[in-house]
Parts: sequence; structure tokens; C-alpha cells
Amino acid sequence: MASEEPVEVVTCTAPVNIAVIKYWGKRDEELILPINSSLSVTLHQDQLKTTTTAAISRDFTEDRIWLNGREEDVGQPRLQACLREIRRLARKRRSDGHEEPLPLSLSYKVHVASVNNFPTAAGLASSAAGYACLAYTLARVYGVESDLSEVARRGSGSACRSLYGGFVEWQMGQRADGKDSVARQVAPESHWPELRVLILVVSTERKPTGSTAGMQTSVETSALLRFRAEALVPAHMAEMSRCVRERDFQAFGQLTMKDSNQFHATCLDTFPPISYLSDTSRRVIRLVHCFNAHHGRTKVAYTFDAGANAVIFTLDDTVAEFVAAVRHSFPPELNGDKFLKGLPVEPVPLSDELKAALGADPTPGGVKYIIATQVGPGPQVLDDPGAHLLGPDGLPKPAA
Amino acid sequence: MASEEPVEVVTCTAPVNIAVIKYWGKRDEELILPINSSLSVTLHQDQLKTTTTAAISRDFTEDRIWLNGREEDVGQPRLQACLREIRRLARKRRSDGHEEPLPLSLSYKVHVASVNNFPTAAGLASSAAGYACLAYTLARVYGVESDLSEVARRGSGSACRSLYGGFVEWQMGQRADGKDSVARQVAPESHWPELRVLILVVSTERKPTGSTAGMQTSVETSALLRFRAEALVPAHMAEMSRCVRERDFQAFGQLTMKDSNQFHATCLDTFPPISYLSDTSRRVIRLVHCFNAHHGRTKVAYTFDAGANAVIFTLDDTVAEFVAAVRHSFPPELNGDKFLKGLPVEPVPLSDELKAALGADPTPGGVKYIIATQVGPGPQVLDDPGAHLLGPDGLPKPAA
Repeated sequence: MASEEPVEVVTCTAPVNIAVIKYWGKRDEELILPINSSLSVTLHQDQLKTTTTAAISRDFTEDRIWLNGREEDVGQPRLQACLREIRRLARKRRSDGHEEPLPLSLSYKVHVASVNNFPTAAGLASSAAGYACLAYTLARVYGVESDLSEVARRGSGSACRSLYGGFVEWQMGQRADGKDSVARQVAPESHWPELRVLILVVSTERKPTGSTAGMQTSVETSALLRFRAEALVPAHMAEMSRCVRERDFQAFGQLTMKDSNQFHATCLDTFPPISYLSDTSRRVIRLVHCFNAHHGRTKVAYTFDAGANAVIFTLDDTVAEFVAAVRHSFPPELNGDKFLKGLPVEPVPLSDELKAALGADPTPGGVKYIIATQVGPGPQVLDDPGAHLLGPDGLPKPAA
Repeated sequence: MASEEPVEVVTCTAPVNIAVIKYWGKRDEELILPINSSLSVTLHQDQLKTTTTAAISRDFTEDRIWLNGREEDVGQPRLQACLREIRRLARKRRSDGHEEPLPLSLSYKVHVASVNNFPTAAGLASSAAGYACLAYTLARVYGVESDLSEVARRGSGSACRSLYGGFVEWQMGQRADGKDSVARQVAPESHWPELRVLILVVSTERKPTGSTAGMQTSVETSALLRFRAEALVPAHMAEMSRCVRERDFQAFGQLTMKDSNQFHATCLDTFPPISYLSDTSRRVIRLVHCFNAHHGRTKVAYTFDAGANAVIFTLDDTVAEFVAAVRHSFPPELNGDKFLKGLPVEPVPLSDELKAALGADPTPGGVKYIIATQVGPGPQVLDDPGAHLLGPDGLPKPAA
């Protein structure tokens, strides 16, 4: 008689990651293989995380998924690719010399519920955290212990980088089957304790071009992107690894800014051109260069993904002054104490010299709010059954 | 006895030119030699021109120059380079086998007055027209008949392209002494009579980074610029020459847009990054792509120089409809009949389909005004003595 696995419910959390050497462009659309390697910083889950509950049961009649309380289409190709890949790994595991025959649970349907502790409308790439969490959670449900890069990648390329904490690289790989296109940790979250990350959520005028379509057009039309991928990124990756290893903030910061600008340059070299940077983004860029020039060295660095939000890297000794500089140049309009979320930041006055250097051309309301965070760990299993997002009936629990 | 030249007063006009394959970056700062070739369209002087009067007299005690009625510093290095170069050519001519000894006029001082028939504040690169006019006028004064590319170039690189009408290329040259870095006409102004140019003067928020400093920083910091110059521009130049020769507007338009975007991409890849495109510039870009998509082909093309103004290329059969589209998306705020200058454009209604395609998200006042013009001739001598900007005393005539 085939042994049956009890119904599994597993809840995990996974982090957001921010690339400092950017991924933009695929060499294989189906396997999600990139044209260049990338390197990211994992953010702390206290401020940003996805929580996912996955349950399997013979009583479920179909796979179902709920995102932030709303049922979504489980037939979505990326989701399907993820589910197929994890089930393939589960079958492979079972058939690798284990005595038990394939358990019935592999034929069960799965219910998944996932929530973010940050707003989707904020334009903070949640698909990386979401697919990493899905991969990690389903792996726990199915007892899969192998590398999950491919599962996460098939959902969203950069999701594989959210499988680890600290500093992570996604090695592009050379193989056509993508088996060597994997994420690995470059340094743990404890490596650079002084590093801080500020996410400046800016007012968005229009929904930006989606990154999947955008990067495809870039690969098809931008000669500068091809050159970047082949001739420039390998050196950027080597240098960034060194910067992280040696905690060289000046070099880390400069390379971060340059790589971000170069990525956006290739977007502008796309046809039709893609512009993710808004006028506010550009003002943040100017603020950073101004701040650094005032101090005579790189104390703050910006990076921008496929959207207008700015992600700022700095060290803990600079956070308060830089936040004050942001308030000066982008005076919050209404929300007073809701302007700063996450890690506490003490209010400090700006020196007159810095005020003079920043100029008097404020953009009220340009920055909606700031999330202050730091480097954090990789995915976690939650042992507390109260954390499950699905009830015993396999349906989402009512929101608390 | 040395023969004396009579006091010379010469007045000339010279055009503005707009590059469709962009010059950005020098390989020699002193001789103004570019890192890549460039190709431009000369605009008609009925709409945009510089008028320059040069007078030499033994009674003048020093070189002096007035620009738009205001005396400027004649010691400015670019101006000095121009004057030295034209005088060198004048001495060389005299010494090339002519019988007369060098005339005293070569030792006379020169007075120069120059005016534009378009506002400097409009950000329409007037230095090309200005230095081309200066070179051309001084050549007439000194009887210089040789190639003036170097004289104009030493003032402002792109000025050499304003020495010819129609379609002009500035061949980058290979020699270190720059003798082969010259402009030549690719096709005359009569070659493509249907071609029209619309300059969309946009509201400027801030003075953009000057192009001399900007391109220097780009050369020093942008790997993408180096690649563009070495690997991409030669093919762009060959293709653009073909497009002009064959009057292939679709290909001309697409390459014009791509080269403009690529130039701006290298500006973004500069460190610190340079952004010449404003939010309004980007809206114009979207308008053009939308307009072309609606029509199913490239009917309109944009190009942007080191500033936010858009220069639009189209054919005469499309001008009215595109101007109507601009009015729809950028409703003029106050100036009613001052919104459209230059060649007359008949008001036409927009089709409902086009209105729908353009969307309903207007930017009132985003475009301050439009100058409608066409391809035009090179520099001209004005024979009418009433046109002189300097009086018999060598000082600027009072403004009329």
C-alpha cells in the first residue's frame, strides 16, 4: 500500500533584493536565462517581505492561488512554469534511490496564498520576493532539497537572487539548458553591518513599461546593451564582488551608480526608447551627487530599477544627514510622521553649508515616503501555525 | 610701395544646422577634432540665421566684437582661435606666389557685429551659425578662398557643417593635425524639397550642462560612448548618406531617432550622468511614436541636441496633421497666433482615431512655440550696404 503524506501546510517568508549590477535582457525567454550576470543586496524582511502559505490536499480539486487576498489566474505561464519545475524536482527526488514509491501527494493540487508587507503600488519589485517565496515554500511542502534557482528563475529571473540573504550573485551560466544559471551567496547578511538602504518611493505619473517586454525590446534593438553584456558587465561583477568583500563603500557606491546609469542608458538606446527615470528620479540623482561633492567623497549611492523609485545605499553614520537632505529638497506634503518608515532615523539639522550646496529649489511631495532598511537574511520557514495564511479548509483566512 | 587694401566691410549670413548623426566628444580639445563623424541638415535662413558684419580699418585700435548688440570679450579663446586661423590663412594666401607683398590690412584690427534672427534663450544652438558666419565673413574680408572648415571648427566644432547648405557631413579625419577633419556637402538644399523641419521650443526648467564640458566628461567616463564612436557611427553615417541620397524618409526618420536616443544614452552613461531630455522631451518622443504607430509607418522623426528642444523631421504632406497633434497634446497656453512661426501651416482637424490614439493627457504650455522651416542654403554674402551692422565708424548701428 502506498504510504500517504499527511496534508502539508507550510508558511515561509522571503525577501526583496536590489541589484547593484543589473540584469536586463534574456538569452532564453522560456528558461529565463540572462545575457549577463547580476549581483544584488538582499533587504531585511522586517521592512519588506513576502509571506506565502502553501497547502496540498487530496480534497483540493484544482491548483489555486491568492495574492494579497485576491484570487489570481493560476494558469499564468510563469506560475505554471514554477509549479511544473518544483513538481519535476519532487518526482526526481523521490526517484533518486528512495525506497518509497512516489507518494500520492505529488498528484494533489496545491493552494497558495501570498501577501506582501509593503504596497504593490509602491513599485517595489515584488515578483522577486514572491517567486522566491513560492519556490521555497513549495520545496518545503514537497521535500525538495536541491538548488531552487531554476524554480525561482522560471517565475521571475531576479527571484533566484532572493533565495539567499546578504549579497548574492546570479551567475549567467553558459549552458543552453540553464543548469548553471544559478544564484549563489557572495557574502552573508552579517558581512557589512554598517550598510543601510533607503528606498525613496516617488510619486508615479504613469505605469512604466513592464520589464519583460522592455528587456526583450532592448535585446532586439540596442547595440549598446549587447556591448554592455558582453564587454562590460564581467568586469563590473568582478569589481563589485571585490567591493563587497572588502567593504569598500566608495568604490561600491560609485560602481552602483554607474551600473544603474548604464542600464538606463541601454533603455534609452532601445527602440522605441524606454525611460524609467522621471524628473524626480533625476532630482534625486542630482541631490546625491551634490551631497557627495559637498562631503568630498562618495558617502551615498543611488540605483534605480525599472521604475522611478530610488534605492539609496549608505552607511549607518550618514543615514540621518541624508534623510534630512531629502526632506530639505523634497519637503513632505502632508504625512508628517508617515514620511519615514522602517528603521528609526533620528532627526538632525542640516548644516548651513550643506543647505547652501543643495540649493533652494525644493520639490514638495516629490518623494512620497522613505523606507529605511538594511541587509537581511534569506527565506525563512515560519513554525508558528498561527502564521498560516490558509485555514484548514485550504482557503485564505479572513484578514485580521 | 606696399599697396593698401581699402577698408573692407563685409556682411554675410549663415545658417543653423541640425545633426541627424550626432557629434559628441573630441579626440583633440585644442584643434576641435571629433571622435566620430557627423551628418546634418542645414536649416533655411528665412527662419534661422546669423548675420555678421566684419570691418577692418587702420583706425581700429583693437579687435572688438558685438553679439546681439552687446559687446563681448574678444579674448575668449575660441574667438581668438578663429581669428588667428583666418589670419594665418590670409597670410598663407598672400605668400602663395602672389606678387603683392602682404598688405597692411593683415595687421589691421577687426570689428565684428553679429545678430541672430532667433532668440538665444530658445536654446537653439547658435554657436554653429555664429562661428560659420564669422569664418565666412572674415574670409571675404581677407580674401581667403581656401576651405574654411578649420576656421569654423576652431570656434565651435559643428560650425563647420554650417558652411554648406543642404545635407552636410563633417568627416572626422584621421590626421593628428586635423587637416582632413573637414565638412563637405552630401546633397544640396534642392535635393529633397518635400522635407520639413519643425522646431518645438519647450519650456526650460534649468540651464542644461554646457556641451563642451559635457562631452569632455562623456569621453572620459563613458565606455558606451567609445563603443558608439568606434563601432557604430561609421555604419550610421553610411546608412544616413544612403537615406539622404535616396530620399528614403522611413529609414531616414528611424535612424535619426535611434542616433539621437543613442547620443542621449551615452550622456546618461556619463559620470556624473547628463540628462538633456526633460519630461516634456519624453512626451514629445511618445507623441511621435504614437503618431507613427497610428499611421503604421514612420512619418515623423525627432532628434534632440544638448537641450530639451525637439527638432522634428517630416514631409510637407504631414506637417499640418502633426502640428495639430502637437496642439492637441501640448495646448498652447496664451499666445494663440504666436504659437506657430516660420513657414505657414494650415490648421487641420485631427481625426477621432488619431485623437484617441494620442490619448487625453495634455500638457498645457509644455511646448512654448513651433518654428516651421525647411532645408536651406549655405552662407551668403549680402550686397546691400544697408545690411551692414556696423556704421562707417566701425561701431554697431543703433538698432532699427
